[in-house]
Amino acid sequence: MFPVQTAISQVFSDRILVRGYSLTAMAGTYSFGDVVYLLMTGELPLGQEGEMIEAILVACVEHSINAPSTHTARAVANTGAPLQTAVAAGVSAIGEHHGGAGEACARLLQETIQAHPTATPDELAARVTADFRQRGQRLPGFGHRFHDPDPRAQQLLALADAKGISSVHVALARAMVTALHEATGRSLPLNVDGALAALLSDMGIGWRYGKALFIIGRTAGLAAHACEEQMTGKPFQFAARVEAEYIGPVERPLPPRPSETV
Amino acid sequence: MFPVQTAISQVFSDRILVRGYSLTAMAGTYSFGDVVYLLMTGELPLGQEGEMIEAILVACVEHSINAPSTHTARAVANTGAPLQTAVAAGVSAIGEHHGGAGEACARLLQETIQAHPTATPDELAARVTADFRQRGQRLPGFGHRFHDPDPRAQQLLALADAKGISSVHVALARAMVTALHEATGRSLPLNVDGALAALLSDMGIGWRYGKALFIIGRTAGLAAHACEEQMTGKPFQFAARVEAEYIGPVERPLPPRPSETV
Amino acid sequence: MFPVQTAISQVFSDRILVRGYSLTAMAGTYSFGDVVYLLMTGELPLGQEGEMIEAILVACVEHSINAPSTHTARAVANTGAPLQTAVAAGVSAIGEHHGGAGEACARLLQETIQAHPTATPDELAARVTADFRQRGQRLPGFGHRFHDPDPRAQQLLALADAKGISSVHVALARAMVTALHEATGRSLPLNVDGALAALLSDMGIGWRYGKALFIIGRTAGLAAHACEEQMTGKPFQFAARVEAEYIGPVERPLPPRPSETV
Amino acid sequence: MFPVQTAISQVFSDRILVRGYSLTAMAGTYSFGDVVYLLMTGELPLGQEGEMIEAILVACVEHSINAPSTHTARAVANTGAPLQTAVAAGVSAIGEHHGGAGEACARLLQETIQAHPTATPDELAARVTADFRQRGQRLPGFGHRFHDPDPRAQQLLALADAKGISSVHVALARAMVTALHEATGRSLPLNVDGALAALLSDMGIGWRYGKALFIIGRTAGLAAHACEEQMTGKPFQFAARVEAEYIGPVERPLPPRPSETV
Repeated sequence: MFPVQTAISQVFSDRILVRGYSLTAMAGTYSFGDVVYLLMTGELPLGQEGEMIEAILVACVEHSINAPSTHTARAVANTGAPLQTAVAAGVSAIGEHHGGAGEACARLLQETIQAHPTATPDELAARVTADFRQRGQRLPGFGHRFHDPDPRAQQLLALADAKGISSVHVALARAMVTALHEATGRSLPLNVDGALAALLSDMGIGWRYGKALFIIGRTAGLAAHACEEQMTGKPFQFAARVEAEYIGPVERPLPPRPSETV
Repeated sequence: MFPVQTAISQVFSDRILVRGYSLTAMAGTYSFGDVVYLLMTGELPLGQEGEMIEAILVACVEHSINAPSTHTARAVANTGAPLQTAVAAGVSAIGEHHGGAGEACARLLQETIQAHPTATPDELAARVTADFRQRGQRLPGFGHRFHDPDPRAQQLLALADAKGISSVHVALARAMVTALHEATGRSLPLNVDGALAALLSDMGIGWRYGKALFIIGRTAGLAAHACEEQMTGKPFQFAARVEAEYIGPVERPLPPRPSETV
Repeated sequence: MFPVQTAISQVFSDRILVRGYSLTAMAGTYSFGDVVYLLMTGELPLGQEGEMIEAILVACVEHSINAPSTHTARAVANTGAPLQTAVAAGVSAIGEHHGGAGEACARLLQETIQAHPTATPDELAARVTADFRQRGQRLPGFGHRFHDPDPRAQQLLALADAKGISSVHVALARAMVTALHEATGRSLPLNVDGALAALLSDMGIGWRYGKALFIIGRTAGLAAHACEEQMTGKPFQFAARVEAEYIGPVERPLPPRPSETV
Repeated sequence: MFPVQTAISQVFSDRILVRGYSLTAMAGTYSFGDVVYLLMTGELPLGQEGEMIEAILVACVEHSINAPSTHTARAVANTGAPLQTAVAAGVSAIGEHHGGAGEACARLLQETIQAHPTATPDELAARVTADFRQRGQRLPGFGHRFHDPDPRAQQLLALADAKGISSVHVALARAMVTALHEATGRSLPLNVDGALAALLSDMGIGWRYGKALFIIGRTAGLAAHACEEQMTGKPFQFAARVEAEYIGPVERPLPPRPSETV
């Protein structure tokens, strides 16, 4: 059968190469952020992209128990599952409604600019915002149910401005905040997913890695919570606390089995 | 119902605190490795532990498709699952036989030294090695089916020596390599899990985080592979390549149903 | 906080009610297929739907190691993970390309008939087939990479005909096979997902349960394979057999770190 | 590379064989319980074991939202994940503290009787109970935090008695309830896991399938809940309801970075 193709790494008995570079030579000289950038783009950063990615990973690392992924990881750890099982369940809860908007937002930013390379951010923002409103959809990456503004987005954009990383995708994202405000009268600032999306786009990383970057950072928080739950969690402390309201049929006698009615 | 207790983080509308520190203030000033150390120990590093953790994460990040977790993540991505589902499946494959030995090895090192604080590394190594051999068990963290020596372990220990991090747990781990060689005549060098275990122990991190550290690093590799599979994978390229040898009963006619035999 | 609403079940200290019926009274008098029907529709079957569901579950139960979900479950069991972790990974691999087409096909059948209640199956089949061909998409539930015809689909449809269950959705599915043949010149018979989709639709079960029915049946096969792997599997027998072709950059020296270039 | 060995099934283009029997010939003539028994033992039942397994699957099918696995499946479905991802996360939460005791209990019953084939149930029960109490461990399969007695266990044992299935393992399990009562003064009746364990043991099924049987049945309930959550769940209704009590360090200023202190 044909072999499986990959451009990521090669393993030899005496060395491991990632995108052609020695993994062990990078350990201790390049940061984890540098290597994540290498994994995602194929090249080591020429500028401060590695530090920017480290900052993104830190910003994504932790949002306590009320984040659905963390709640899920702890709930599974609470059942006596091993650590990898609890973290895996937590990762699987990073979906469209939580942590996953970075992928959709990055795709929107990248495809919009690719399709209209000469338009201004304000023109594009007006068009994209109108499109989404016409379809009745929410723009991914804007607004947060708890933070207004999202301090993580503010900090990441300030860092990107200082590092000279902010470019056309950040400009479009900022123009969309203004366009959204004008169109709706509401404040829908960039959230951490939206900032992550704009920044990875301006660093030349494909939109498909938008969710990946959040997952990598958050995994550290999930692991810490799962370990804490293993050490200190009270039995059934998650599932048992849900107050359920039953809205189905009231108690009723069993009907005779169909075969018995013949 | 009683609240769920956690000592990890607090979320306010204008700020997020991790172990009491502002998450956004750390983003851009502290490394991801520093923050992982904070999550696991409760304190930011006073020395070079953050850089050591970054090196560990880099060493764990990637080992190509023949690692069971990477193979699993790609196999699930190949079915059309979303990224978080593929990465989650990959994380769930980091078990006792692959990537998970760091937890068992760290526990062994920490409990051995805690139980015999005044014994020398050589005395402890001889005792531990004899115990495992008597029970017919493999020592977790030693030997690798592919690498001899494991270049990742060598590099991590060299970095730890240079940073002044290597201490009693590293000494015990090294003594165990010698004791294993004397007892078995075979070369069973520290592998990446064993090096990780010795180093986190000498940095004051509890053994329970041994598997966690590997998971955090490897998640970046899993995500890169899952994205590559989504973009370039051929349909059914994993499951379909397994050659199965059927060793069960040959084809046979169905017996009459039990109820029909009455 | 508002309670979580559910219409599925209630648990009391002395009894468990599912859709109002005593669970323990059903155990031993109603089949598992009857209870699955109850869970999905809210009512126990009046006819032979429970037997039909049992037949569907049996048809979905097992397709050996080359099915992606089974391959994944065994690969994870091979790492030393507990049974639930291996089965969970297998379930997560039941996606759009494998086992999940039942949901999409059922939705297509149900929405097509709902939108055009008076059209004939042939009219609808011609329209649906033309729509998909125009968009360059494959119709979910038709054709199988290995079976032509799919013996499971044939058997399930024959049973449904005999039980008087086949109705408008089965008629539409059959008309689509003819329309596909006329449009493409190729034989694209109903596969097991497509048969399942037509049958659950004719039993009054919503399309959303299309994937669920496959998952429930296949879980038994996944569990049997995971147990077999735990008992007899050779170490690394899945991941290690993948032949990878590296197509990335050749080995290259590390560049100086960006900060060192300043 | 050597092929992967399996004794479970063979797939041909025109037929699928499970343990040598035609899958499609079984669909419609044998029950799902019969086929589960075939998967687990290698043979179709000669007596009423298939009906017993159907009753066990029904008894395990559903225990509402406060069961950790159901809670987890709904929490993940709530994030917008696809059905297979939600069900997988639920399955991964079937651990030692919830649903998984059947495996440990079956192993205990089978190994105890195998080691002492001529002892009476009362002798064995006294010995096993004393052993566990001496080690300070809970006996798996006895007692339930909510049901006393567990109506599912009662119903399953009554069915097994009526079908002539109850034999030495059921006798031992019942003797253990008496021994536990005498030793502790407390009522610790068989729970559903314990009944399942005793019954599968008396049907000649290996202990390793104890957790599997629970998983197969409960998957139907998990799928129904995940579908209900997809259709009616309110955003963030699980994670957001957890009241967390933060017990870590109070807010504190960031220390200078280690490198800056040099």
